[in-house]
Amino acid sequence: MSITALPDLIIDPIVRAALAEDLGRAGDVTAAACIPADARLSVVFRPRSVGRIAGLDCARLAFAALDPALSFTVEIGDGQDADAGQIIARASGGARQILSAERVALNLLGRLSGVASLTARYVKEVEGTGARITCTRKTTPGLRALEKYAVRCGGAINHRFGLDDAILIKDNHVAACGGVGKALERARAHAGHLMKIEVEVDGLDQLDEALAYAPDVIMLDNFSLADLATAVARAKGKIVLEASGGVNLTTVRAIAETGVDVISVGALTHSAPVLDIGLDAE
Amino acid sequence: MSITALPDLIIDPIVRAALAEDLGRAGDVTAAACIPADARLSVVFRPRSVGRIAGLDCARLAFAALDPALSFTVEIGDGQDADAGQIIARASGGARQILSAERVALNLLGRLSGVASLTARYVKEVEGTGARITCTRKTTPGLRALEKYAVRCGGAINHRFGLDDAILIKDNHVAACGGVGKALERARAHAGHLMKIEVEVDGLDQLDEALAYAPDVIMLDNFSLADLATAVARAKGKIVLEASGGVNLTTVRAIAETGVDVISVGALTHSAPVLDIGLDAE
Amino acid sequence: MSITALPDLIIDPIVRAALAEDLGRAGDVTAAACIPADARLSVVFRPRSVGRIAGLDCARLAFAALDPALSFTVEIGDGQDADAGQIIARASGGARQILSAERVALNLLGRLSGVASLTARYVKEVEGTGARITCTRKTTPGLRALEKYAVRCGGAINHRFGLDDAILIKDNHVAACGGVGKALERARAHAGHLMKIEVEVDGLDQLDEALAYAPDVIMLDNFSLADLATAVARAKGKIVLEASGGVNLTTVRAIAETGVDVISVGALTHSAPVLDIGLDAE
Amino acid sequence: MSITALPDLIIDPIVRAALAEDLGRAGDVTAAACIPADARLSVVFRPRSVGRIAGLDCARLAFAALDPALSFTVEIGDGQDADAGQIIARASGGARQILSAERVALNLLGRLSGVASLTARYVKEVEGTGARITCTRKTTPGLRALEKYAVRCGGAINHRFGLDDAILIKDNHVAACGGVGKALERARAHAGHLMKIEVEVDGLDQLDEALAYAPDVIMLDNFSLADLATAVARAKGKIVLEASGGVNLTTVRAIAETGVDVISVGALTHSAPVLDIGLDAE
Amino acid sequence: MSITALPDLIIDPIVRAALAEDLGRAGDVTAAACIPADARLSVVFRPRSVGRIAGLDCARLAFAALDPALSFTVEIGDGQDADAGQIIARASGGARQILSAERVALNLLGRLSGVASLTARYVKEVEGTGARITCTRKTTPGLRALEKYAVRCGGAINHRFGLDDAILIKDNHVAACGGVGKALERARAHAGHLMKIEVEVDGLDQLDEALAYAPDVIMLDNFSLADLATAVARAKGKIVLEASGGVNLTTVRAIAETGVDVISVGALTHSAPVLDIGLDAE
Amino acid sequence: MSITALPDLIIDPIVRAALAEDLGRAGDVTAAACIPADARLSVVFRPRSVGRIAGLDCARLAFAALDPALSFTVEIGDGQDADAGQIIARASGGARQILSAERVALNLLGRLSGVASLTARYVKEVEGTGARITCTRKTTPGLRALEKYAVRCGGAINHRFGLDDAILIKDNHVAACGGVGKALERARAHAGHLMKIEVEVDGLDQLDEALAYAPDVIMLDNFSLADLATAVARAKGKIVLEASGGVNLTTVRAIAETGVDVISVGALTHSAPVLDIGLDAE
Repeated sequence: MSITALPDLIIDPIVRAALAEDLGRAGDVTAAACIPADARLSVVFRPRSVGRIAGLDCARLAFAALDPALSFTVEIGDGQDADAGQIIARASGGARQILSAERVALNLLGRLSGVASLTARYVKEVEGTGARITCTRKTTPGLRALEKYAVRCGGAINHRFGLDDAILIKDNHVAACGGVGKALERARAHAGHLMKIEVEVDGLDQLDEALAYAPDVIMLDNFSLADLATAVARAKGKIVLEASGGVNLTTVRAIAETGVDVISVGALTHSAPVLDIGLDAE
Repeated sequence: MSITALPDLIIDPIVRAALAEDLGRAGDVTAAACIPADARLSVVFRPRSVGRIAGLDCARLAFAALDPALSFTVEIGDGQDADAGQIIARASGGARQILSAERVALNLLGRLSGVASLTARYVKEVEGTGARITCTRKTTPGLRALEKYAVRCGGAINHRFGLDDAILIKDNHVAACGGVGKALERARAHAGHLMKIEVEVDGLDQLDEALAYAPDVIMLDNFSLADLATAVARAKGKIVLEASGGVNLTTVRAIAETGVDVISVGALTHSAPVLDIGLDAE
Repeated sequence: MSITALPDLIIDPIVRAALAEDLGRAGDVTAAACIPADARLSVVFRPRSVGRIAGLDCARLAFAALDPALSFTVEIGDGQDADAGQIIARASGGARQILSAERVALNLLGRLSGVASLTARYVKEVEGTGARITCTRKTTPGLRALEKYAVRCGGAINHRFGLDDAILIKDNHVAACGGVGKALERARAHAGHLMKIEVEVDGLDQLDEALAYAPDVIMLDNFSLADLATAVARAKGKIVLEASGGVNLTTVRAIAETGVDVISVGALTHSAPVLDIGLDAE
Repeated sequence: MSITALPDLIIDPIVRAALAEDLGRAGDVTAAACIPADARLSVVFRPRSVGRIAGLDCARLAFAALDPALSFTVEIGDGQDADAGQIIARASGGARQILSAERVALNLLGRLSGVASLTARYVKEVEGTGARITCTRKTTPGLRALEKYAVRCGGAINHRFGLDDAILIKDNHVAACGGVGKALERARAHAGHLMKIEVEVDGLDQLDEALAYAPDVIMLDNFSLADLATAVARAKGKIVLEASGGVNLTTVRAIAETGVDVISVGALTHSAPVLDIGLDAE
Repeated sequence: MSITALPDLIIDPIVRAALAEDLGRAGDVTAAACIPADARLSVVFRPRSVGRIAGLDCARLAFAALDPALSFTVEIGDGQDADAGQIIARASGGARQILSAERVALNLLGRLSGVASLTARYVKEVEGTGARITCTRKTTPGLRALEKYAVRCGGAINHRFGLDDAILIKDNHVAACGGVGKALERARAHAGHLMKIEVEVDGLDQLDEALAYAPDVIMLDNFSLADLATAVARAKGKIVLEASGGVNLTTVRAIAETGVDVISVGALTHSAPVLDIGLDAE
Repeated sequence: MSITALPDLIIDPIVRAALAEDLGRAGDVTAAACIPADARLSVVFRPRSVGRIAGLDCARLAFAALDPALSFTVEIGDGQDADAGQIIARASGGARQILSAERVALNLLGRLSGVASLTARYVKEVEGTGARITCTRKTTPGLRALEKYAVRCGGAINHRFGLDDAILIKDNHVAACGGVGKALERARAHAGHLMKIEVEVDGLDQLDEALAYAPDVIMLDNFSLADLATAVARAKGKIVLEASGGVNLTTVRAIAETGVDVISVGALTHSAPVLDIGLDAE
């Protein structure tokens, strides 16, 4: 699957806010002091280690926000893998502008590539099992659209984007309704025909109760591998099964091999280390 | 040093934007379907592993944004350490409101506590050496004020907050000016009397050139331990020396023992794993 | 189904922007000239004709934005029907503040009640058929969350909330992909497990092609009643069928009686006349 | 009178907010799945029924916000009448961008053309009487500038734009001041020399009281035709007379023929049905 | 005439933006370092020289934005005169919050009181002549609503608030239309019934041409005293005459004595020195 | 020192907000009525009196916001002196757009040039003494970045930009800490290595106490000339000395001659009269 870029309309306000945060009330005082107004600069982006790229549009828009006449070309685009030291993009424009925007460009590009790279490792880990990796709502406040996009660049699929685009019934909701079945009944009465319903179950008993009400997705929370396999035996092909809890790079393969459809991993967005990408003058 | 809270005026807009991002166009459809309008809920925050707390005001403001009558009490405050399972705060209010704000509250609290916890590990590592840990501008776009605060909660000091509040001359600036000395002359002519000047040097030769111009801080970039020690011998007590590059939890103690004043660590904000904090109904 | 209120956090910024738009650069000059600063006023809201109420929170927040000490009580709440002349709510507070906020309060309340009232007429029209009424994305820019809420107050269900929360394949998409089947294949490869897929078909041939790919919903666009009935015979119970096009209060009953599951009506939000609601001093 | 366009500076933020509302957190997922990144599309705008056009700049800016290289040409401009099926404008650009912006473009164009079309019907109805049609502040929150503009496209004049640009004394103000005369005295003391003063009267007695204080405009609220005629006989040529209340397409001609100067119609903006405009690929 | 306060809804966003500008990314670092979290402070506002007060709501809202539990009482309100050293208001609350908000509170209060004080001097200067002083659009960007309000506190009336609430025909417009009369004809065709029309004339010939078209106001631009008197003789009582150009505290009395109705003074808002107001701990 | 322009990214939002404030809800009704849509206009900027220019980018961006195809050329740039009547810049573009943006362009350009001009007079006054002039935080809310820039155009240096980029200990802080020394100790414990510390002292005793703690800057508040000279004798060369209080164009030279390093002047930003700059059609 190729990656479809987000519209600039979604990215640009985030980039401009980040630049405003960094430029503060006086702009880049170092560049103002040291760089002649008419100096030009050409730079290349190079990751310092291997990784999956995501966020080049953020870098482009950061430079373009300060120098609309910027030239920016991509060598290795979002959703592709780069080796350490490979040139992934080039930019050329006003030296002051490029130096002033550098940190914002790299902060976004490095962070999103970090998310994509970690995601790609999970995706590779489950290759051939049929299981798909997905993210959660444990994203950075303000960057959800970008981080969900980075997850797609990593080869995974997106879970819901917010509290409003799917129903996900958890333990507190079940408790308030008096059971999984009653919660699913209320959910069905409430949901429109284009909203999916997922319910979290914490054991095989709840799974059976949920199955009777045919939700779109059942989340198997903190199931043992044995219980996951049992759940798959009971429900596979009827309802999408999502495993969650205790997922890491060591455990994910075994979980996938139980036959679940989807595995959700909070760490993709809440704990991915940055991909270290450097900007070097040519 | 006790931690001084940021004004709500700085935090609240970030929290409200995060809630708006999560609530989307229809609000929390699951809570709407499953939780009675008048249900009440009391919850406790408990880290799932040991860590340094930062960001409880974010959690409080997230709940209060949806339920102004919320009660919120802190047991273990920002800047303090908590054990796994210890209650750090309690909240009580409308069940729908608490469930709807939960993810935003935890996303901010977990992320900032993650930054504080990683910072605290670095600070502990250099204990007794006299070196202080500091952060960089490699922060999450939109969250710089909060992440710099979390660094303070971790016991470190802050580097500059943006491009505008101190001069930091790097290699590209030196190249554009034709040398460290010329760059420092231009910086001094440009800076006001309340702005500090730092210059990055990449070797002992540049260090000597910089020393002649008496900047406030010299950044020793990617120096070997031997060169750091030499730099300290030449400059200690005259000019603040900051080591940067190649700093991690394995190397930081030896770097600190060279006698440098400050050690800057980008990972504090760009790669800190989240502190996993759970919200449990009482 | 009872109606769940939207969070104030979603409504309040819209209300405040509307007040700012109306107050302009000098505020309410008439009230400033004519109403003593300490005058009090109690008012009642009364529809001038029968209708379904929606938007009382907007009215409450408009008054409260100018007078935080306002008292506001609801007699006939959102989602309920009111007769002409019945008191639906009372407000009491500063006279200047109430008079200044009156127009904004009524503009939102009247518009949303207009949407709810028209929706309720459609819902009543199809009573007993099993068909459900739904809305479209033909909403007022800036007011989608509110108008979708008003549709729920009218007893209908919501279609998707934007371009991002469900896939809806239309004729241009089909053309670009080279057929309904190919479009559905691409959609399925692209969509996450919590995103529904709907496809619009313009005839029974396309219906059959679509059925083979099992989307979640098929939109039967501008089908004759006979073709709708045929479609129902072929697909009912397997896939949700949505009728669209040529729906009005005269035609909707017959369409519903064909057995389709959902009927979408753009007029609910793009052409609902306002419900005339008056504010009278007590 | 030809129509003067609003500056893009006023329209563009509204259009961009509408696009952001529709694109949400993931953008147009259907176009992302189905439309190749380099596909081009040419479309024409055609009303499905006869009407007065208003809002083409909104459509242009919606497309241009997603594709800055868009080509957009107008055949039948704002303020002109189009027949059903006539091409009013053409756009050509990226297929994804045009399909993603289509709904926002049509929502604004259809709504404003709806306002203009209804206005034009009222204007035509009173042709030859000398009476002018005007709007009210019963506009859609957030769209007042646009809807007032659409009223001008319909051939009518604008009433005040907000609470701050003219004084309009209504019954509650009169009551608070203790009479029409006292209210007008206070208004005159308060108003600057560039602010007009209008007073609403509910009978001939109040009219006479108002006339003695020479406001700029007198609003005759819910007057019978006979009383309107009497009012005209007493005041015509001295003070601008505005009829309001009970105005619809059936009654407006007779009201105009009484000789009043201006007739205000809330329905122009609060209840105009959308003009159905379609976008067809060429 | 007593002064009617602006709604907090207009003032508060300006105050909060000013606080955000001052607090930056780290808040008040001095107060954080030096003031205990629970310290209380009571302060009084005292002008250091005699002046007319305007803007106490700004000061109140600045403190309240940081400390919602603040107590604030006014001794000498907006629109009243204070002697040097007189207490005009008291505030009591958290010491950190008051010290952090102090500069923003005083910046707004001092600036607006400066405008009001200069205005009051002009108003006093023309006392008894019947002429009224008015302002222009030469206001501080972002503060027009506040500065126009301060002008009212000074006892003057407001000119138009923007480009949109009255027509003011100047030399370039006259030139484009081909004469004063033609410009007035176009203006009348364009303006609604609640919009005033003013035309600027630069000599008695243009005055006569303008009089024939009966605008609401004629601006006599840079007229000599003799020409002003002639203009008054020709037009007084028929049309409002506004003198502009070359107005200062030395010339304004003679201008007023020519009998003009209104005198506009740009300096009221563009060059008023601040009223020095101090904040002293009690 | 040449002046480095602020990035457009900082200026443009201020300019656009100012235009929106002026255009209101209907745009420039006079230009709409009187200026043909295709009329072109070329204008020149000329100060009416001698002054130092600052803010030409604001003027350029104001015009460009309404007419992106505008041509704008600078003859006498920011930081340079212009005589009365000299052409400092030319603009050419759509007549309506230029006339609509004129007031915003001039409001910003005149105000900033006023600040620069007053600053330049102070700078000239102290020429040859070695003292530098600096500003304060007594700036216009919302315009701090621009006014601080204008101060630089006037040849002075900037004091801190907000409460967050340097520590400035004043009397209330000293009182809360129990002495100058204790306050400085707390400040040092709190400040990072890139934050300067200044302390205000009100007499020679406090000066001596402060000197013992070696802050970066000591502010000598309201010192007599004799005390200033004594302070210089004690501290010159060790610590930067800043004189404040009672500074005006009459006193500043004598203050500078005492040997202080910096003199802060609040009037630069809070009371500078506008530089009257006219826009004339060519």
